[in-house]
Amino acid sequence: MPAVLSRIAHARWFQNFITTVIVLASVLVGVETYPQIEKQYHRLLHALDLAIITIFTIEVLVKIGAEGRHPLRYFKDPWNVFDFVIVAACFLPFDNQYITVLRLIRLLRVLRLLRAFPKLQVLVGAIFKSIPSMGYVSLLMGLLFYLYAVAGVLLFGKNDPVHFGNLGSSLLSLFQTVTLEGWIELLNIQLYGCDKFGYEVFKDQCTQPSTHSIAPLFFISFVLVGTFVLLNLFIGVILTGMEEARNELADLKNKESSANPREYDLKRIETEIARLNESLKTLQVTKIKFRAKDEEEA
Amino acid sequence: MPAVLSRIAHARWFQNFITTVIVLASVLVGVETYPQIEKQYHRLLHALDLAIITIFTIEVLVKIGAEGRHPLRYFKDPWNVFDFVIVAACFLPFDNQYITVLRLIRLLRVLRLLRAFPKLQVLVGAIFKSIPSMGYVSLLMGLLFYLYAVAGVLLFGKNDPVHFGNLGSSLLSLFQTVTLEGWIELLNIQLYGCDKFGYEVFKDQCTQPSTHSIAPLFFISFVLVGTFVLLNLFIGVILTGMEEARNELADLKNKESSANPREYDLKRIETEIARLNESLKTLQVTKIKFRAKDEEEA
Amino acid sequence: MPAVLSRIAHARWFQNFITTVIVLASVLVGVETYPQIEKQYHRLLHALDLAIITIFTIEVLVKIGAEGRHPLRYFKDPWNVFDFVIVAACFLPFDNQYITVLRLIRLLRVLRLLRAFPKLQVLVGAIFKSIPSMGYVSLLMGLLFYLYAVAGVLLFGKNDPVHFGNLGSSLLSLFQTVTLEGWIELLNIQLYGCDKFGYEVFKDQCTQPSTHSIAPLFFISFVLVGTFVLLNLFIGVILTGMEEARNELADLKNKESSANPREYDLKRIETEIARLNESLKTLQVTKIKFRAKDEEEA
Amino acid sequence: MPAVLSRIAHARWFQNFITTVIVLASVLVGVETYPQIEKQYHRLLHALDLAIITIFTIEVLVKIGAEGRHPLRYFKDPWNVFDFVIVAACFLPFDNQYITVLRLIRLLRVLRLLRAFPKLQVLVGAIFKSIPSMGYVSLLMGLLFYLYAVAGVLLFGKNDPVHFGNLGSSLLSLFQTVTLEGWIELLNIQLYGCDKFGYEVFKDQCTQPSTHSIAPLFFISFVLVGTFVLLNLFIGVILTGMEEARNELADLKNKESSANPREYDLKRIETEIARLNESLKTLQVTKIKFRAKDEEEA
Repeated sequence: MPAVLSRIAHARWFQNFITTVIVLASVLVGVETYPQIEKQYHRLLHALDLAIITIFTIEVLVKIGAEGRHPLRYFKDPWNVFDFVIVAACFLPFDNQYITVLRLIRLLRVLRLLRAFPKLQVLVGAIFKSIPSMGYVSLLMGLLFYLYAVAGVLLFGKNDPVHFGNLGSSLLSLFQTVTLEGWIELLNIQLYGCDKFGYEVFKDQCTQPSTHSIAPLFFISFVLVGTFVLLNLFIGVILTGMEEARNELADLKNKESSANPREYDLKRIETEIARLNESLKTLQVTKIKFRAKDEEEA
Repeated sequence: MPAVLSRIAHARWFQNFITTVIVLASVLVGVETYPQIEKQYHRLLHALDLAIITIFTIEVLVKIGAEGRHPLRYFKDPWNVFDFVIVAACFLPFDNQYITVLRLIRLLRVLRLLRAFPKLQVLVGAIFKSIPSMGYVSLLMGLLFYLYAVAGVLLFGKNDPVHFGNLGSSLLSLFQTVTLEGWIELLNIQLYGCDKFGYEVFKDQCTQPSTHSIAPLFFISFVLVGTFVLLNLFIGVILTGMEEARNELADLKNKESSANPREYDLKRIETEIARLNESLKTLQVTKIKFRAKDEEEA
Repeated sequence: MPAVLSRIAHARWFQNFITTVIVLASVLVGVETYPQIEKQYHRLLHALDLAIITIFTIEVLVKIGAEGRHPLRYFKDPWNVFDFVIVAACFLPFDNQYITVLRLIRLLRVLRLLRAFPKLQVLVGAIFKSIPSMGYVSLLMGLLFYLYAVAGVLLFGKNDPVHFGNLGSSLLSLFQTVTLEGWIELLNIQLYGCDKFGYEVFKDQCTQPSTHSIAPLFFISFVLVGTFVLLNLFIGVILTGMEEARNELADLKNKESSANPREYDLKRIETEIARLNESLKTLQVTKIKFRAKDEEEA
Repeated sequence: MPAVLSRIAHARWFQNFITTVIVLASVLVGVETYPQIEKQYHRLLHALDLAIITIFTIEVLVKIGAEGRHPLRYFKDPWNVFDFVIVAACFLPFDNQYITVLRLIRLLRVLRLLRAFPKLQVLVGAIFKSIPSMGYVSLLMGLLFYLYAVAGVLLFGKNDPVHFGNLGSSLLSLFQTVTLEGWIELLNIQLYGCDKFGYEVFKDQCTQPSTHSIAPLFFISFVLVGTFVLLNLFIGVILTGMEEARNELADLKNKESSANPREYDLKRIETEIARLNESLKTLQVTKIKFRAKDEEEA
């Protein structure tokens, strides 16, 4: 029995079938966002959904069954755990009241597309692998945000409670600043006071307006240092990822070339011998040259 | 006859003439955007336009004719197909009612400038060639957009129908977010509800205001992952393109150097022999050194 | 006595303890930004704060004492000076009136986290080291900003006193422009005059409205040149920093490999000898080949 | 006489003096932007200005005089032409009516700081040199802008005369789009019509409101292609410039090492001989190995 299941699990037709179902499931979650379609074809969509869950469940069972007496081996591959969680989540007892949560869970199936394309799986894996190499830059980023967030609350918290009222909103405002989106508005609120600038929508929250001439220093320094560290982080991860990909490619080529080393070596030896041979011919000429040179210098 | 046409088609004066006409046609579409000029010189512009179409048509016919008995060979070069389509489009039966469509078609002639500058052709070709190498990053980008777009409709669709009402507007809002343009406004609409923020222009469309404290997570994660993948994609294409260009240059140089290999080899051999010769001289000294060393270690 | 202090200062448990205290102090400055917590646990927080200052002071004294008769040696390490300044600042005679200043000084302790993670220290050091290599690009940036700031005041100072009234505000507006945040608004104020555009908030400051058709040239040229030089600066620092890091890594590897040179050399020699050996075998074949070639050419 | 002038022109004290005057002149144009200071110290500033012009003029005369009988040789160095133009411009007959023009001309002296720092001169020269290598990317950029600008006028010219009324404003709007600043607003004007969106300030110019569902395609494609080509251009120039700088550095090092080649060669030969020597030792061992291998394969 496990042998049969294993043969099924590794069969090309089975994998292609599952990929097709994943693509279908992904399209479905998109289609269901249109209320008219959802109403008109409600039954069809519901049936398809049931079919997809059933197929996914069977797939998991087949793969677990294929492991024979050691079903837990299935969970050794993190991508299998990933599949299992996505399928298991569909059996959580949410009733129709939590329709949005239910649909968000169903949306997770789109992530199974990563499995459907193995190279995509490799790519995502490579990105995740290159992140730890950037761990210290991330830590520096975190430190920078924390430092400025606390300073932001201390300096501007009373004048601008919406953007710097507490650590959370301060961090959000700093993230906004680092994306360079509307940071000049945040600066102007501190420069001119919340009673003069930017609190048209939140008038009642501007209770202690004050002006801070240190604000430009705060924002300009954060923009410069923040975008620099963030760019450093991004470029670091990208270039590390690219180099890793190139190294893997080089390793692959080396393996291929070492498969028939004799042929490769012979070619190189031939050129080397040719060089040696010609060297011997020109040796006479060179000797004379060098003698002349030595005499000159002497 | 085909021989004559072929000689014409490859003649320098013919190519220069066609380039001049393309540049003229390109300038003309710009000039025609000024209504006053268009009115005053209407006849002249019309005559020039007719002349340009005629010349382009003759060019195509000459090139097809140059192929002799195999006129379809003309279409083997994709750039020829490109030319043909642009010229053929001018003969589509649009009357003056669709004046804008007509002018947009005429605007396509500007693209023929790519042909006029062969190096530009190479550059564009290089960019197009480096795109497939980035296929999987593009796929990842698409997956990311689809995932967030569906989640956006499910989460914010009712509160913010203008930006997240359906998949299309949701995708547009996400693209806006990834360009970092006004994303904080989109976030605030979800944070404070459409009745409090951002629906000044579309008041009547804010029918079900609600607040979502999950919005910062949604937007910050998308900004980070989205800009990262997009930057990855762009830098990947740029660096791949540059390397390709460098490799082509290196190939070119290798070919040139291999044209007179004797000279090149002799130079290298000379230096090598010189090295060997000197080596023999210093051999004596070294031997003593090494003996001393071995005795030390012994 | 100095020996004992030195042993304590370099003990693992002492360093770990200090790191823990630094992390605690960092968390504390964040916690204190929440007024409710601050009120409720005021005594506890105050006690913790006192404890932290005491521990930091003892740490400094231990380290100075460890130097024995030459206490000033402690200040030779710039990071020690850094520590000393942060600790000493806590003893500045600010009373509760300047509570914000006091807290900002306390916030500086977060920077001691850099010390707690030695690799972070290296990273920050690397960034600082790569800055001087970019000194001339920075100088160019400064020159560019100064040139445009003066020109901005001369051209737009009267029409737009808020953004170009003096050198300071002009520099701030240029920095805003180089971050591409709202630069089109600054342009429009000069294009249409402050009475038509952008002075809704500062109506009374728009005393001499005028229009400047040179504004697009001013802003577009500054955006192009400014972002280019800034990008040059950032990418320069990042790539220089990365290369430095790679070189340090390579040096490290070389040192390791030179630790057992014999083994390494033997391996290379073996392959070399093998090559030579095979060369001798194929020499006969090659000789014939070359003779044939020479006869052909002759 | 020319010999004396030449000695002066190349004297260290003369160059330092001129540099000091340039720095002073640069500071002065900044100081003069403050009306109060300008009023109070009007006479002093005027005197200083006169002194600076006199010194600059003398400098030019000295340098021209230093060329002896061939004064036009002075103009062979483009940086000398640059100096001459800046000094000559100060003698243009502008009266106080054109005070702003006069001051802008005076501002040009700041550019002479480039001369004062020779390395800055090299840096700017390197950037200018790397621009032609990017000529075709610039051409592509120009083509792209022209194509979209004409299409913008044809499609949106009537609905949005402020941003797409003619080629000039269309190009400006496209530049705004490529900097990602407020591009979503431009899109919304076309999507909802000028009567619904964005024409609050220019109400009277919205005469033919219309909606264009093709606008997202227009803007998204331009954002993607435009930012890509611009990034390509910038990164291309930056990396080319860096490589050039590195090559120059390598050339410099090569020259230095070739100054004492004997020493350098001897070192290399020594290591080589050592390798050969050891090779001969291990030859015996290897021979046996290879024989064994050959027998195995036989």
